Amino acid sequence: MDRILILGAGRSATSLIKYLLEASVSNDWQVIVADYALQLAEEKVGNHPKGKAIAFNINKEEERDTVIQEADVVISMLPARFHPIVAEACLMFGKHLITASYVSDDMRSFDEQAKEKGLLFLNECGLDPGIDHMSAKKVIDDIRGRGFELRAFESFTGGLLAPDPSDDNPWEYKFTWNPRNVVLAGQGTVKFIQEGRYKYIPYHKLFRRTEMIHIPGHGYFEGYANRDSLMYLDVYGLQGIQTLYRGTLRRPGFCKAWDIFIQLGATDDSYMLEGVNTMTHRQFINSFLSYNPADSVELKLAHYLGLDIDGPEMHKLRWLGLFNEEPVGLQKGSPAQILEHILKKKWTIGPDVKDQIVMWHLFDYEEAGQVKRVRSAMVTNGDDAVDTAMAKTVGLPLGIATKLLLQGKIEARGVQIPIIPEFYNPILSELGELGFHFIEEEVVL
Amino acid sequence: MDRILILGAGRSATSLIKYLLEASVSNDWQVIVADYALQLAEEKVGNHPKGKAIAFNINKEEERDTVIQEADVVISMLPARFHPIVAEACLMFGKHLITASYVSDDMRSFDEQAKEKGLLFLNECGLDPGIDHMSAKKVIDDIRGRGFELRAFESFTGGLLAPDPSDDNPWEYKFTWNPRNVVLAGQGTVKFIQEGRYKYIPYHKLFRRTEMIHIPGHGYFEGYANRDSLMYLDVYGLQGIQTLYRGTLRRPGFCKAWDIFIQLGATDDSYMLEGVNTMTHRQFINSFLSYNPADSVELKLAHYLGLDIDGPEMHKLRWLGLFNEEPVGLQKGSPAQILEHILKKKWTIGPDVKDQIVMWHLFDYEEAGQVKRVRSAMVTNGDDAVDTAMAKTVGLPLGIATKLLLQGKIEARGVQIPIIPEFYNPILSELGELGFHFIEEEVVL
Repeated sequence: MDRILILGAGRSATSLIKYLLEASVSNDWQVIVADYALQLAEEKVGNHPKGKAIAFNINKEEERDTVIQEADVVISMLPARFHPIVAEACLMFGKHLITASYVSDDMRSFDEQAKEKGLLFLNECGLDPGIDHMSAKKVIDDIRGRGFELRAFESFTGGLLAPDPSDDNPWEYKFTWNPRNVVLAGQGTVKFIQEGRYKYIPYHKLFRRTEMIHIPGHGYFEGYANRDSLMYLDVYGLQGIQTLYRGTLRRPGFCKAWDIFIQLGATDDSYMLEGVNTMTHRQFINSFLSYNPADSVELKLAHYLGLDIDGPEMHKLRWLGLFNEEPVGLQKGSPAQILEHILKKKWTIGPDVKDQIVMWHLFDYEEAGQVKRVRSAMVTNGDDAVDTAMAKTVGLPLGIATKLLLQGKIEARGVQIPIIPEFYNPILSELGELGFHFIEEEVVL
Repeated sequence: MDRILILGAGRSATSLIKYLLEASVSNDWQVIVADYALQLAEEKVGNHPKGKAIAFNINKEEERDTVIQEADVVISMLPARFHPIVAEACLMFGKHLITASYVSDDMRSFDEQAKEKGLLFLNECGLDPGIDHMSAKKVIDDIRGRGFELRAFESFTGGLLAPDPSDDNPWEYKFTWNPRNVVLAGQGTVKFIQEGRYKYIPYHKLFRRTEMIHIPGHGYFEGYANRDSLMYLDVYGLQGIQTLYRGTLRRPGFCKAWDIFIQLGATDDSYMLEGVNTMTHRQFINSFLSYNPADSVELKLAHYLGLDIDGPEMHKLRWLGLFNEEPVGLQKGSPAQILEHILKKKWTIGPDVKDQIVMWHLFDYEEAGQVKRVRSAMVTNGDDAVDTAMAKTVGLPLGIATKLLLQGKIEARGVQIPIIPEFYNPILSELGELGFHFIEEEVVL
């Protein structure tokens, strides 16, 4: 009987735990779910005969060693900073490790030792990174396998809300994952390649340089560029490609309104504001505007940023209650922390809200003098605020990879990401059976 | 015979050395000028009978200890990061220390030990910080001494060029001090107080939120806010003040044109650009603009930032040669490093160029129900590119402070800045005799 240890039973582990418990009977596994909050682990395991919930503190070495020693494969859903600690224990006790996080320098340094011990340390095997790698690399390898050269690759992912015509939220957006990361998204400089030229966008222009993308059956989205697309030159072996661009999707109109916060400086996380304990929403906005008691905060803001006072951006801010004399409700905070706190008042999802994951790729290549374009899209909705599209698309690739590994169908060892056929073919195939399809279309440009 | 040791013989030490050498005969001092480049020290000392030039490497402990041990007072003109090393040696050997740099946390930590040993560690005694402290604090203390409360304090300094109608430079600006600091100026968040409200300006809005300032006899200047005015609440004891704002002066029109570089991301020093070795000025600008081969770089830029294609901002960029297909001439670099390199081609001052230092303060206070405003301004020009206004206004306060100390006229000990009468009265008085006057005027608002 193989033992699977899942570290962390939070929101994004729901579908993973469910998938592995379901598969555990026919595969004769035990699934051990370990969390700092025992109750959370117990809720996720329920009374499943193959499941076991345990309390677990990553910082207690003895506890950590004991549970990892008893496992055959460890799936870490902990914050990425803990992965190196887990990886060291996995090396010591000879256990495989699977995560959905980006390969850090620390993680990369374990490659040789893991290979020597015959262990797989698979990372970036969730949604983004994860399904993005697999679905893109499969098409890239196919085009190359037919002897053609890739001219352009663009890739966008969005964690959104499923359309709901009964909702008055003009942003068509709520927090479906870590709110702090949403508030800080895009900070740093963006780098990409367009038609052979390196291009750079500073943070304060990022949300104004968006691309409009149409996905048949799902309508329009707007995409802003992710931080560093250039690293995919090496990861996917794309040196010499003419266009390389990765981005994030939002509903149309989101980015121009979000840009207001950036222009104000309200997403700055580098310093603490003064007088937060008595500050209202309105005062928060006003602290970024010039002093002029004759004008309203609304008019000062609209004039400062060149907005229509009754336009869609100002409406989105009004809907959030940003002009209300409502206390922020924090004792202290950076601008980003205060903004996050205010946004949570309106952007926290209720139990029935369905989220939506949208992934979209574009590939250009030349065949017999013609430029051909492949577009590939996956759109999937959550069932409710527990079985979210996010939890499913993060958890299922991890679960499938774990199953394949324990069934002896994965030969790769060392530190890996799922960009080789051994991973992406069976994982994408099973995801398809579970309803997570990519719809591809090819056109001649 | 007292021995004065000056560490560093660079541009900003010229007037200091000259002043101390002149005073050395009647005061019976020896003035030892130490620099990494012996020739530079020798040039500055000339054949003055009381002067001595020596080679000096701050990183060689023995050398450092030997020269410091022989001195009575040390003036450090080295980069501020070296001051703690110098300060430790001064503590060890019981020597006074004088600098023109901001008091760092390291420097502050020496306060108690310096007091115990009866040593003065005087910092921030140049121009800005230095003359700004003295000229402002003298007025503040005077207003308070008369029993009135300060309502507002604003203070601006600029290191500029003296007006030259024969010059075609539309920026009316060249590098008269560290070019790197000019390129990076304003990065971080600006904080100040206006009419009792804390206000914050992010870097990408800083050069658009300027104040226009008129100085009788010298015309208009525009001022942008310095990083953190709030720290002057404690430094000057201004808690409860309604308006507190410190800034930097430029000629009108400078800030809106400089803002182009900020909007593009061309002052970013956090990452290295690709392909710098073959890059032209024009390509540098284009790397921050979207790809569109049908439009010129000029038109793309003007459209992106909402500028008139033939307006004053575009003219300033053309004058700098930024649209030329001229190689940058660097092998690698961050955007800020490349911009600095390009600017130096046009903004390096020739031997006959006269610089100008402008300092301007505003103080509001209430007397008998009336709000009164004191304005105080100093404008002074350099003689040429060696005897600059910058070198004089940085060096002379240091020199005067050193003289007063050696003459036994300063009782303060420990880590100090010149905000008490013991410093500011005699230093401002002698500066006035040397031609560096503040013109004050008072009006009733």
